[in-house]
Amino acid sequence: MSQPQIVIPANNAPYTDLPPINTVLFEAKAKKGLTFDQIAKEIGKDEVWVAAAFYGQAKFTEDELKKVSEILGIASADALGELGNHWWPNRGLGPIPPQDPVIYRLYEGVLVYGHAIKAIIHEKFGDGIMSMIDCKINVEKKPDPKGDRVLLSFETLSFVLELTFSA
Amino acid sequence: MSQPQIVIPANNAPYTDLPPINTVLFEAKAKKGLTFDQIAKEIGKDEVWVAAAFYGQAKFTEDELKKVSEILGIASADALGELGNHWWPNRGLGPIPPQDPVIYRLYEGVLVYGHAIKAIIHEKFGDGIMSMIDCKINVEKKPDPKGDRVLLSFETLSFVLELTFSA
Amino acid sequence: MSQPQIVIPANNAPYTDLPPINTVLFEAKAKKGLTFDQIAKEIGKDEVWVAAAFYGQAKFTEDELKKVSEILGIASADALGELGNHWWPNRGLGPIPPQDPVIYRLYEGVLVYGHAIKAIIHEKFGDGIMSMIDCKINVEKKPDPKGDRVLLSFETLSFVLELTFSA
Amino acid sequence: MSQPQIVIPANNAPYTDLPPINTVLFEAKAKKGLTFDQIAKEIGKDEVWVAAAFYGQAKFTEDELKKVSEILGIASADALGELGNHWWPNRGLGPIPPQDPVIYRLYEGVLVYGHAIKAIIHEKFGDGIMSMIDCKINVEKKPDPKGDRVLLSFETLSFVLELTFSA
Amino acid sequence: MSQPQIVIPANNAPYTDLPPINTVLFEAKAKKGLTFDQIAKEIGKDEVWVAAAFYGQAKFTEDELKKVSEILGIASADALGELGNHWWPNRGLGPIPPQDPVIYRLYEGVLVYGHAIKAIIHEKFGDGIMSMIDCKINVEKKPDPKGDRVLLSFETLSFVLELTFSA
Amino acid sequence: MSQPQIVIPANNAPYTDLPPINTVLFEAKAKKGLTFDQIAKEIGKDEVWVAAAFYGQAKFTEDELKKVSEILGIASADALGELGNHWWPNRGLGPIPPQDPVIYRLYEGVLVYGHAIKAIIHEKFGDGIMSMIDCKINVEKKPDPKGDRVLLSFETLSFVLELTFSA
Amino acid sequence: MSQPQIVIPANNAPYTDLPPINTVLFEAKAKKGLTFDQIAKEIGKDEVWVAAAFYGQAKFTEDELKKVSEILGIASADALGELGNHWWPNRGLGPIPPQDPVIYRLYEGVLVYGHAIKAIIHEKFGDGIMSMIDCKINVEKKPDPKGDRVLLSFETLSFVLELTFSA
Amino acid sequence: MSQPQIVIPANNAPYTDLPPINTVLFEAKAKKGLTFDQIAKEIGKDEVWVAAAFYGQAKFTEDELKKVSEILGIASADALGELGNHWWPNRGLGPIPPQDPVIYRLYEGVLVYGHAIKAIIHEKFGDGIMSMIDCKINVEKKPDPKGDRVLLSFETLSFVLELTFSA
Amino acid sequence: MSQPQIVIPANNAPYTDLPPINTVLFEAKAKKGLTFDQIAKEIGKDEVWVAAAFYGQAKFTEDELKKVSEILGIASADALGELGNHWWPNRGLGPIPPQDPVIYRLYEGVLVYGHAIKAIIHEKFGDGIMSMIDCKINVEKKPDPKGDRVLLSFETLSFVLELTFSA
Amino acid sequence: MSQPQIVIPANNAPYTDLPPINTVLFEAKAKKGLTFDQIAKEIGKDEVWVAAAFYGQAKFTEDELKKVSEILGIASADALGELGNHWWPNRGLGPIPPQDPVIYRLYEGVLVYGHAIKAIIHEKFGDGIMSMIDCKINVEKKPDPKGDRVLLSFETLSFVLELTFSA
Repeated sequence: MSQPQIVIPANNAPYTDLPPINTVLFEAKAKKGLTFDQIAKEIGKDEVWVAAAFYGQAKFTEDELKKVSEILGIASADALGELGNHWWPNRGLGPIPPQDPVIYRLYEGVLVYGHAIKAIIHEKFGDGIMSMIDCKINVEKKPDPKGDRVLLSFETLSFVLELTFSA
Repeated sequence: MSQPQIVIPANNAPYTDLPPINTVLFEAKAKKGLTFDQIAKEIGKDEVWVAAAFYGQAKFTEDELKKVSEILGIASADALGELGNHWWPNRGLGPIPPQDPVIYRLYEGVLVYGHAIKAIIHEKFGDGIMSMIDCKINVEKKPDPKGDRVLLSFETLSFVLELTFSA
Repeated sequence: MSQPQIVIPANNAPYTDLPPINTVLFEAKAKKGLTFDQIAKEIGKDEVWVAAAFYGQAKFTEDELKKVSEILGIASADALGELGNHWWPNRGLGPIPPQDPVIYRLYEGVLVYGHAIKAIIHEKFGDGIMSMIDCKINVEKKPDPKGDRVLLSFETLSFVLELTFSA
Repeated sequence: MSQPQIVIPANNAPYTDLPPINTVLFEAKAKKGLTFDQIAKEIGKDEVWVAAAFYGQAKFTEDELKKVSEILGIASADALGELGNHWWPNRGLGPIPPQDPVIYRLYEGVLVYGHAIKAIIHEKFGDGIMSMIDCKINVEKKPDPKGDRVLLSFETLSFVLELTFSA
Repeated sequence: MSQPQIVIPANNAPYTDLPPINTVLFEAKAKKGLTFDQIAKEIGKDEVWVAAAFYGQAKFTEDELKKVSEILGIASADALGELGNHWWPNRGLGPIPPQDPVIYRLYEGVLVYGHAIKAIIHEKFGDGIMSMIDCKINVEKKPDPKGDRVLLSFETLSFVLELTFSA
Repeated sequence: MSQPQIVIPANNAPYTDLPPINTVLFEAKAKKGLTFDQIAKEIGKDEVWVAAAFYGQAKFTEDELKKVSEILGIASADALGELGNHWWPNRGLGPIPPQDPVIYRLYEGVLVYGHAIKAIIHEKFGDGIMSMIDCKINVEKKPDPKGDRVLLSFETLSFVLELTFSA
Repeated sequence: MSQPQIVIPANNAPYTDLPPINTVLFEAKAKKGLTFDQIAKEIGKDEVWVAAAFYGQAKFTEDELKKVSEILGIASADALGELGNHWWPNRGLGPIPPQDPVIYRLYEGVLVYGHAIKAIIHEKFGDGIMSMIDCKINVEKKPDPKGDRVLLSFETLSFVLELTFSA
Repeated sequence: MSQPQIVIPANNAPYTDLPPINTVLFEAKAKKGLTFDQIAKEIGKDEVWVAAAFYGQAKFTEDELKKVSEILGIASADALGELGNHWWPNRGLGPIPPQDPVIYRLYEGVLVYGHAIKAIIHEKFGDGIMSMIDCKINVEKKPDPKGDRVLLSFETLSFVLELTFSA
Repeated sequence: MSQPQIVIPANNAPYTDLPPINTVLFEAKAKKGLTFDQIAKEIGKDEVWVAAAFYGQAKFTEDELKKVSEILGIASADALGELGNHWWPNRGLGPIPPQDPVIYRLYEGVLVYGHAIKAIIHEKFGDGIMSMIDCKINVEKKPDPKGDRVLLSFETLSFVLELTFSA
Repeated sequence: MSQPQIVIPANNAPYTDLPPINTVLFEAKAKKGLTFDQIAKEIGKDEVWVAAAFYGQAKFTEDELKKVSEILGIASADALGELGNHWWPNRGLGPIPPQDPVIYRLYEGVLVYGHAIKAIIHEKFGDGIMSMIDCKINVEKKPDPKGDRVLLSFETLSFVLELTFSA
């Protein structure tokens, strides 16, 4: 049997909504058999952040792009040419409401627990708002005899405590 | 000045979408000046869970309802009559997409980080799915000299690791 | 403690979308502590059908309405006055897409397995269509050491095998 | 007359939303004249599951992909290259609400019977939820003198009976 | 058993979207046990037209309103006061897309056969358009040993054959 | 002047949503100058049915496809290769609500007369439903001195008279 | 027969979306049997403008309100109390897309002729825009032997010819 | 500097929704530097009608197509091949609601003045409806010292005065 | 003429979406003939902020509420009872897209200039985001011989300059 | 390392919705390393206006296009051929509601402050409307020890003070 030639379906969502170089990144990552965590460790970032950058939702610095290109074995000139200083993320990806069950569950969390989370935030922080852009996200596997658990956490860096706009 | 008579605007969203007794619970809580955490501690639950139950998104047991009624100083017969064994949550609350900025930020997290979180879940758990219904949610305040941080975490109890339906 | 007075929140969805007598039926059922199956057995129907009729999605005959009124201890004149011969179901209930997770899962089944089910139907029946109105639905509990299972089945009575409209 | 060259309209929905290799699978299956059931038997899965995998809604293991390639007479390297370990289903397919009458009927079942099914689930299982992802689906033909019937059933493997998130 | 007091659920769709007198018309019709056809014959109109007028989609003349009031045994002053010369139909009723299966089937006819009907109209009439407002609609029962058939027909009065706007 | 080369804009709606062979059928029909009625007579079907099949909403049998190919002067192998036994209609075509005025008028008929038609159906047939898939549609030109009329009729073959699902 | 008591269905759209006094204006106008043109002549405005003001889409001056109250025989204090200096139109009325055929035709004009009108405006005025708020609208009846014609015209007062924002 | 080669962005809305020949018409018109009015005068039509036909919303006769081709200097065979007798307008163009401010203003006119225009039509014509398809539209420039004005008028040819469907 | 009794149409949008006390605030403000600026000066806030608070989009402190009550001549206990410490804004008001032309113009600014503003922000601040919640808004009248101008400005307090989430 | 070849992802939103020459402008600007402000200064316009023109939302004059081409080092014939006199902006860009957080914040400003801004405009200008098309927009960076601030301002040129349409 011939060796599988790994292909990312660039004509499929969500790849169609990304710069072509991002599909190249995904293909190179798959060919190298690397995880996001392995790439993240090399460039000193979190794995969720790196995955977000692969999906065009975050912006690598020039240095990060060069390192990522090196790790993946692609020409950094290509990466810089498409995702360099002139490029800015056009954030937000996929249909609303989400159709994929994994993403829908996150969305369902907003539908079902949104008001409760807002109420607790108000009790603890006052009339503020948490940033979901400037945040640190972790997905961890927590072994459990009854079945592994997922621990998903969002740590927001810049909560605005006092929401007033005085003169 | 006369004493303020605390009122919950029952004819306003989201209260219009809840059983009338839930508005009574909110009013009693406000009059007593209790936090969700204080109520949660009394009945051995989490504060987010209790807030969710106040918003009609979770179901108190009969014992919990009695204790909550006692804590709030309302007739437990009223609470049981509306939210007792015959009642089941009709989950999902509020407009989609959310218009309130606090809730919208959660939603924006899905828009922006949904694909990244899904990718990390696949790398760590395989073709599974995390439950957003059966989960434990925490909202914590993390003091920080540059401004307090919010730590929001979801721990899902029952991750389905193997997603096959064999004969 | 006084006796709980069972109340159905008639000003809440989906009760607001039903004739007022249906809310009376739900309250009486809750007060009597009856299951849909118990009512169904008395009138010779399935439990899902009876639940559908309580939600205004199916139509009791005059005799069934009288029996149901008797079982629930309400005046059959009231039931007949609202749901009698002159009344016809206005089918379809609730927001689209569904927000409640239990109902959403059914909907997700359509999103994820709809094309697969259609393909198998075509392989087995040709260019036909199954009726979802004229069907028999069962929800069964199947005990299992790893956790109980739900068995949900739809048996359609009148499949149209040949879909042609010849002159 | 020359021999028909079987073609799947890859530029038509839902094929446009699938990795190109899936269209190849459909074409090969059509050329071989195989049913989903015949393929399913070879790899020890259900026919609905196999159809779902053809529509990109489920994930073959590497072994299954090799066997399917062999059965269909296509290069397994191609299948592995596109649907191998690096690929994960992006579930959910087609417009909402569905326009095709066969799929719409399933959807109509949710509109009309959703609340009834939820009510019976609550009566039998409590405040739980059934999984529609982790389930086993059957479509059977039940001969009947008045016209064949369709029997469609969903058996969910992992019902969550107790929905609490205690500390 | 006391006599049923026929009630139309005025707080339910579509009655909530009609002038209150229309609900009175429906109740009176139900109490008298009359069909739309019987009313139509008395006032020299079609039964579908009369049903449309009951649903607020067509406008009775003053004379027709008086006759209808007489037939139904209600005060014609009430009918004239609400539906008299100053009142004009606000046409279009119900959710889009329709959720009720009977109305949905009509809508499905547009989805599935709309282009075909348009093509035949063009072949026979040129670049014209048929009026759906100014039309005569019939619903007939056609007995058939294999099951009764419905014959639904639309006859449009004023087809615009030449669609030009010359100077 | 050179001879016009008839072209169907395959990159325009609704042709983009059809298998490519359907566009070929339309082009061949236009080149031959045939009406749907002429084709229908050759294969023993109705003209609306044939138009629906050209728009991918109905399925020709193998024999019909061969005859249609012959009439249109195209290679039947091409037609069979795309629309043969392995192909099934993916019904429903065009935007909702329709923007084209001819198709919109049909839709407006549902908006304005839907409830009236449903009411008459209930009066004549009981709690049933008419099929809009399995039906026979005619579009006729009825000459009239004040302007030609369109007579559009739907005859449904399989009305479901009794809508119960007994055990 | 008793005298009809003219009633405007205040619980029906679009009256539910207007200040209660507007419904009073409509009722008084109907009781007096006045046309919008007759009222308009008394206050020196156009009839369409007056109709727009009745529908809450334009603002009467204090003097106009007094005159209109006098003409209609209602207490001007009531009109001033609701529609006086503190009140501002909340413009835009009715569902989108419109369901009423008369209003839909206007909307259809936008769908079908919007691009053509825009192109002609550009040819004649350059890159400008016409105001639809600050405009004068006329609806005239133009007798014609083949059927009366409607002449609907919009004259915009303040066309912006040069659309630049220089420093 | 080389001569500009006039290009219409055929891959941009609304050109993507038109037959390719329409883009050719627009390009030829731009190259010739002709206005719609100049073309209209040559073929005896209105300028808005001609613009509508360029946007695929109206249908040229064969003779008109030949003349237009001659005026624009393109091969009439191409125009006839795409827009000849076999082609029919698929009317309705652009997103709903419109995003372009010029077209949005027309739409805003419907939102704000729709009910007022309908009311005046009823007062003058009774329960009728004006055609927006069969109409004559003018866009005129009316010089004014305070800024030029736009006069936009719709003259409908076939108003339906009596809206009844008698037997 | 009797004195006008100023009334705010509490059953009209947007008042229906606000706590009842807010309607009282609007009525008292209108009766006193105060502007938002006058109220703002008394409590040391901006006029837009005060208007936002009246519309339930911002939260008065207890002291501000007392002062506002005093200025308006209403019982501060009522204001505190509804908008006191237990109440939190449920932000976001009105239909989307906005139908009122004044609010639509703001929205149109997002449609037309959104990408341009984002591009300039990126050029000046990098991959950051401006807060629209924590901001200071001014609306000024700038006299101009050719017609007064509006100067609308947003000053955001907490721009996030570096958008990274490092470990 | 080879020199990065700067590329704008022309197959990605929003570039897919712009004439191809606009993508060329963006690429040339990136290669030259110019800011919008630098280009704006050369042609005597504002930077936001220039950015808007790059995004196809404003129209360069012929002279401006020539200058811009020269600055960017591209053939002005290409720019004139696509964006010359025959081209008009098709304004409005991107999904609604916006998914990108930067653009969403502007939109959120409309949701949260829209009614307040409208109220202040009415207090200061009367029943008028501000133009968002004919306006001058600035984005400024305001250094601040606690973090830089954004100052975004809109100055509208042509406010319509009196909104009447007199005869």
